[in-house]
Amino acid sequence: MASIRAAARLRPMANRLPQKSTVRSHRLYATATATKSASTSANEQPYFPLEPSGPIIKTTIPGPKSKKAIADLDKVFDTRSLNMLADFQKSYGNYIADPDGNVLLDVYAQIASIPVGYNNPHLLEAATSKQMASALINRPALGNFPSHDWASILRTGILKVAPKGLDQVFTAMAGSDANETAYKAAFMYRRQQERGGAKVEFSEEEIASSMLNQSPGAPNLSILSFKSGFHGRLFGSLSTTRSKAIHKLDIPAFDWPQATFPQLKYPLEEHVAENKKAEEAALADVERLITTHHLPPAAVVIEPIQSEGGDNHASPAFFRGLRALTKKHNVLMIVDEVQTGVGATGKFWAHEHWNLETPPDMVTFSKKAQTAGYYFGNPELRPNKPYRQFNTWMGDPARAILFRAIIEEIERLDLVSHTAKMGDYLYSSIESLAKKYPGEFMNLRGKGQGTFIAFDSPRRDEFLKKAKSVGVNIGGSGQMAVRLRPMLIFQKHHADILLEAMEKIVKT
Amino acid sequence: MASIRAAARLRPMANRLPQKSTVRSHRLYATATATKSASTSANEQPYFPLEPSGPIIKTTIPGPKSKKAIADLDKVFDTRSLNMLADFQKSYGNYIADPDGNVLLDVYAQIASIPVGYNNPHLLEAATSKQMASALINRPALGNFPSHDWASILRTGILKVAPKGLDQVFTAMAGSDANETAYKAAFMYRRQQERGGAKVEFSEEEIASSMLNQSPGAPNLSILSFKSGFHGRLFGSLSTTRSKAIHKLDIPAFDWPQATFPQLKYPLEEHVAENKKAEEAALADVERLITTHHLPPAAVVIEPIQSEGGDNHASPAFFRGLRALTKKHNVLMIVDEVQTGVGATGKFWAHEHWNLETPPDMVTFSKKAQTAGYYFGNPELRPNKPYRQFNTWMGDPARAILFRAIIEEIERLDLVSHTAKMGDYLYSSIESLAKKYPGEFMNLRGKGQGTFIAFDSPRRDEFLKKAKSVGVNIGGSGQMAVRLRPMLIFQKHHADILLEAMEKIVKT
Repeated sequence: MASIRAAARLRPMANRLPQKSTVRSHRLYATATATKSASTSANEQPYFPLEPSGPIIKTTIPGPKSKKAIADLDKVFDTRSLNMLADFQKSYGNYIADPDGNVLLDVYAQIASIPVGYNNPHLLEAATSKQMASALINRPALGNFPSHDWASILRTGILKVAPKGLDQVFTAMAGSDANETAYKAAFMYRRQQERGGAKVEFSEEEIASSMLNQSPGAPNLSILSFKSGFHGRLFGSLSTTRSKAIHKLDIPAFDWPQATFPQLKYPLEEHVAENKKAEEAALADVERLITTHHLPPAAVVIEPIQSEGGDNHASPAFFRGLRALTKKHNVLMIVDEVQTGVGATGKFWAHEHWNLETPPDMVTFSKKAQTAGYYFGNPELRPNKPYRQFNTWMGDPARAILFRAIIEEIERLDLVSHTAKMGDYLYSSIESLAKKYPGEFMNLRGKGQGTFIAFDSPRRDEFLKKAKSVGVNIGGSGQMAVRLRPMLIFQKHHADILLEAMEKIVKT
Repeated sequence: MASIRAAARLRPMANRLPQKSTVRSHRLYATATATKSASTSANEQPYFPLEPSGPIIKTTIPGPKSKKAIADLDKVFDTRSLNMLADFQKSYGNYIADPDGNVLLDVYAQIASIPVGYNNPHLLEAATSKQMASALINRPALGNFPSHDWASILRTGILKVAPKGLDQVFTAMAGSDANETAYKAAFMYRRQQERGGAKVEFSEEEIASSMLNQSPGAPNLSILSFKSGFHGRLFGSLSTTRSKAIHKLDIPAFDWPQATFPQLKYPLEEHVAENKKAEEAALADVERLITTHHLPPAAVVIEPIQSEGGDNHASPAFFRGLRALTKKHNVLMIVDEVQTGVGATGKFWAHEHWNLETPPDMVTFSKKAQTAGYYFGNPELRPNKPYRQFNTWMGDPARAILFRAIIEEIERLDLVSHTAKMGDYLYSSIESLAKKYPGEFMNLRGKGQGTFIAFDSPRRDEFLKKAKSVGVNIGGSGQMAVRLRPMLIFQKHHADILLEAMEKIVKT
């Protein structure tokens, strides 16, 4: 049994995990002067010195305690998509624990949404601060009654890391509504232009027809998205999502257009001309749809790396071409950085890799930010009247305070640069593995994109299942992709455990 | 100046407000044996003994400090819908404070979403618990990696107050996505029935067409809602929202049907036959749309009291008739309790007033619950395969923990019964005011519905503005409604302050 072998290989580290439910002080935590830990390679200071030196496998997963608890949970909460029952109080740094005492190296990280480690002590400080307590128990209707410290929370947090050229934000709850509110802003902007500017009043016809869900008040406009893109699962966002049928079946959708996304061939350096052609064809498709679709697009929405769709990349030239096309046709460009944002690609925002001449019109975020919303710069993207972009909560200051603490951790440990370096190491190591095991690590992608790395596996689902038995929690996406989504605090010694585990998987 | 008069009338109570940002112990808090406070009437124990005895007006609102801070906030965050800048750390119980030292009796309560008082000590305990800290800093992807204590958090919280007959929940982030995920469940259920049951596989045509946003995969079905209803502002929910044009203008919408909502005449006892006829006509309209609309409704969504639309009521008989119609035509009934739920109507759920023979198929909640989702009972409303109803976070355990604490407070203080009684007092008192000031408190409504009371004002916006100057924060809705949304801890001495303030408003 692989699980027993893995357990035997590793010295039991459970007693080195923090025993209390949460870690109370920086004493347990990395500082610039932290001494070398046994679990760390020679040149590396561990960010979480008390992490176990490796995974701990005590049972098959799910083990008996988890099985019992899952059966109980299933009575009230659908558990068919359950991957692993977690014990977060016992999870730490890069390691996720379960109720059976198993502790896995986690390179899936809550679907790419844990940035700086489980039970991060600095986040714990933020979570137990007075400001957090007030934000939790006095939740404001932000649009009506923001708190006196909201501007400061924004400036020292969400806006401190705003993409270049975008200095304002509309806050939201999660990725789907971040995208949908950005779409709404795009539609309002477009119609305002068509009407002749912010000062022109709505017509009687617009007012009356909007209440009937009919044009012109509810206009015949669209958002253009790309094949295999993913932008969320509410009705507007799902209409732009083209990842998998299971995400879309039985749900009514807007008849909005989808453009071809270039399907690059790997390795890139061997398919330069072919890939360039594919990107040009995709851009031509975008232009065709912008100019001919029966519901004209008010905006194009695109992910820097199509994540749920299987980690599909395109070149910076493609994105610059897309920016040029949107400018040419006066269509907004919304970059969906829900999964790519906040450091994992070796830039804080993945679109920084593109060197655009003008910034995107809007950039949406969620996941690792632990809060959500869209950034924008053009003041005309504020609707011309109040209450047009509005809802009761409009986000959550508690989560915005947490994002600020995450940003502080990223800055303190210089984690974006770190992730760029770690990505290079991880990528080249998998490249070596791919050579050693032909056909097992196909279409390796993400070079120069931090740890945002993926490859195709001919037996993907089995690969992911086996990963657990050798101590690693990994996620998939698309039809056959294994996607690596380690946290920003993923270090060389973690990479080495991951690489060893992946070799084990393909060897057995 | 009304504001100066109000300030003079009240003895300065600022020194009795808790001076620290939050209240740290139950010592400061009501218990069953709390002694009578000066601010309380003879028969009443104050829930928050250290509340001020009345509002404190120090400046016009916004005052100079607020004005400066609002101008600053506006640089990065749209403030045109800002009602009042709040200082939540200084707010307490029923009173909201601002940076200028003004303290208002708050009967708007963050758009009806604060249930048990600002800085409620029991909520503070929950907010500073270890379980909360872990939920904040280790946010799970609930569908994949729920925590081992998630079943317990659900059972002792959200599910403890599940409406009769509904024993399961799908958790969400806010009212809009609570409704939209309920709509998705309705569509999947409907199509499953049309296909012949849960075991019948999707056809090739369904799979292919769903990816193109076309029928049959993206079916030509609808959700039926009512005129002047409000169900949220994302694309699916906004397609069912019919409150105001400003909520809908410029946003594409599904061509879904809207039924007439009965427009009752007040006082009800003087218009019995007329109102009965209006309700019968509305039900006939529903049946017509269910049987003839070109996009057949998979579900009907309705609020127990149309809240944003102006506090429009209908009788229990109307809702029983609607339930019968939905049963007859095999259409699901979704009751949107986002604003009416959690005690304010004198029942925990407003639809308990109806005595339905069979429970609604789904009930959505948010606002006072501080978390969101939909309850359901029929196991077939779980989609037939995993990942059909799914997203990264699927709610927020931190907010679910807070709802549990809210439920504990409601039970400890028996706040639902309390609110029923308070509502009777408040309603009859406003009824007297209405007689004293004819034409100022029109169409008083909400009798027997707890404190969920509203009336029309011939000069509503002025009324709301003046309210602040006499120390009360009140909200409006619809075209001319003043809606009262006090917290569940609103007591007789607060009602007396409110009544006195309202009289002042109409007298000046």
